[in-house]
Amino acid sequence: MPRYRLILEYDGAPFVGWQRQENGPSVQAAVEQALFKLTQEISTVTGAGRTDAGVHAMAQSAHFDLAKDWEPAKLRDGLNHFLRPDPVAVIVAARTPPDFHARFSASRRHYFYRIVSRRAPLVLDRGRAWHVVHALEAAKMHEAAQTLVGHHDFTTFRSSECQAQSPVKTLDRLEVRQAGDEIHIEANARSFLHNQVRSMVGSLKLVGEGKWSVSDLAAALDAKDRAACGPVAPPEGLYLAGVDY
Amino acid sequence: MPRYRLILEYDGAPFVGWQRQENGPSVQAAVEQALFKLTQEISTVTGAGRTDAGVHAMAQSAHFDLAKDWEPAKLRDGLNHFLRPDPVAVIVAARTPPDFHARFSASRRHYFYRIVSRRAPLVLDRGRAWHVVHALEAAKMHEAAQTLVGHHDFTTFRSSECQAQSPVKTLDRLEVRQAGDEIHIEANARSFLHNQVRSMVGSLKLVGEGKWSVSDLAAALDAKDRAACGPVAPPEGLYLAGVDY
Repeated sequence: MPRYRLILEYDGAPFVGWQRQENGPSVQAAVEQALFKLTQEISTVTGAGRTDAGVHAMAQSAHFDLAKDWEPAKLRDGLNHFLRPDPVAVIVAARTPPDFHARFSASRRHYFYRIVSRRAPLVLDRGRAWHVVHALEAAKMHEAAQTLVGHHDFTTFRSSECQAQSPVKTLDRLEVRQAGDEIHIEANARSFLHNQVRSMVGSLKLVGEGKWSVSDLAAALDAKDRAACGPVAPPEGLYLAGVDY
Repeated sequence: MPRYRLILEYDGAPFVGWQRQENGPSVQAAVEQALFKLTQEISTVTGAGRTDAGVHAMAQSAHFDLAKDWEPAKLRDGLNHFLRPDPVAVIVAARTPPDFHARFSASRRHYFYRIVSRRAPLVLDRGRAWHVVHALEAAKMHEAAQTLVGHHDFTTFRSSECQAQSPVKTLDRLEVRQAGDEIHIEANARSFLHNQVRSMVGSLKLVGEGKWSVSDLAAALDAKDRAACGPVAPPEGLYLAGVDY
């Protein structure tokens, strides 16, 4: 049974998230339905990251099996045809060895968070970034972010709904930089807890506003207490930017 | 009577263009209506560039007069309040001398055109770029573009509806560069003919595809004939990026 791998782009806005759920349309179900329309085969599409409602992907990875052999370019174009008008596109389709698993084989996940800081409402970037009306000090946010890098108990930055067995993760990289009136945040790790990136970004924003000091952020991490976290950043600024294997 | 200047961002998709028209909503009318709701004054808002239906602006300039004196920051925030939910935002509002005219005082206009060249449909950039499925050779497009720079009769690249008295214009700059799977085109001039940028981009795309050579583009310019122009590029890739005074 040949296995295929996809790289997917999507706009998270109309979806309840990556994962198939009973309460609304998911990206996973959209791809599975397009796959059925194209191939007449019912197959589960497994994603690398279970992005939340409203979270976007520039490059989600996924895999599935088909009984029939498909030319990858035809699979890509056919899936894109049946995905319309959903805001999901297959950027790459490829054959992959049967031991490849989009979720369990992943060695690193890359997330990108975009903040636009200005008085005026967002227009061209509406739904594509977190709109913050006050100026943020990116250098201070970056300095504070470095206290989160490394092997830590991230209980503070973990959703109460998180199903991971352990709150201990290794955060490889957390970069904050100014780009015009935008703040770009890159987070890399083998894996993340549920809501971890948005929880860290929400707290970093408090540092950028001057409401928290660098040591306040370190203290929040040390507290290992969800109540010590700042308000979670909204989903529309978050992008799953890539997955390494 | 104090005069004010605005810098405006807008998504061109829902509008018939900048200019007030009977056949649908215009950006100009949206701003004038917000201004009336805020100030109870009826005032004409004059823009620097009369962008076409579907064309976006990162930084359109406009001016208007009011009988009453307004604090510019209140004008900006109040207009943004009354512009909702239209995709138009006031980035900057400022007082300006009474001899400032958004259109006639402009010394240079900057346009930006975005092409995304890939097989997959656009998702995150839907409505924000021209989607071209074939690869384009940016270096060849840039080379050809240089034949258009300078003082020329641009009849070939001018809409039949253009109302300018003369087809002769000076194009100061036309840069084409690759940025990942995108092609970015920047065009600068004191002023442009109607549809000039989209006409030039449409012909440059033929060069990028290898359908036209550099000398074919030069010959099209020399022809001074609208029929010699390539298909006009669609509006969703075009942005009025700034106006100098």
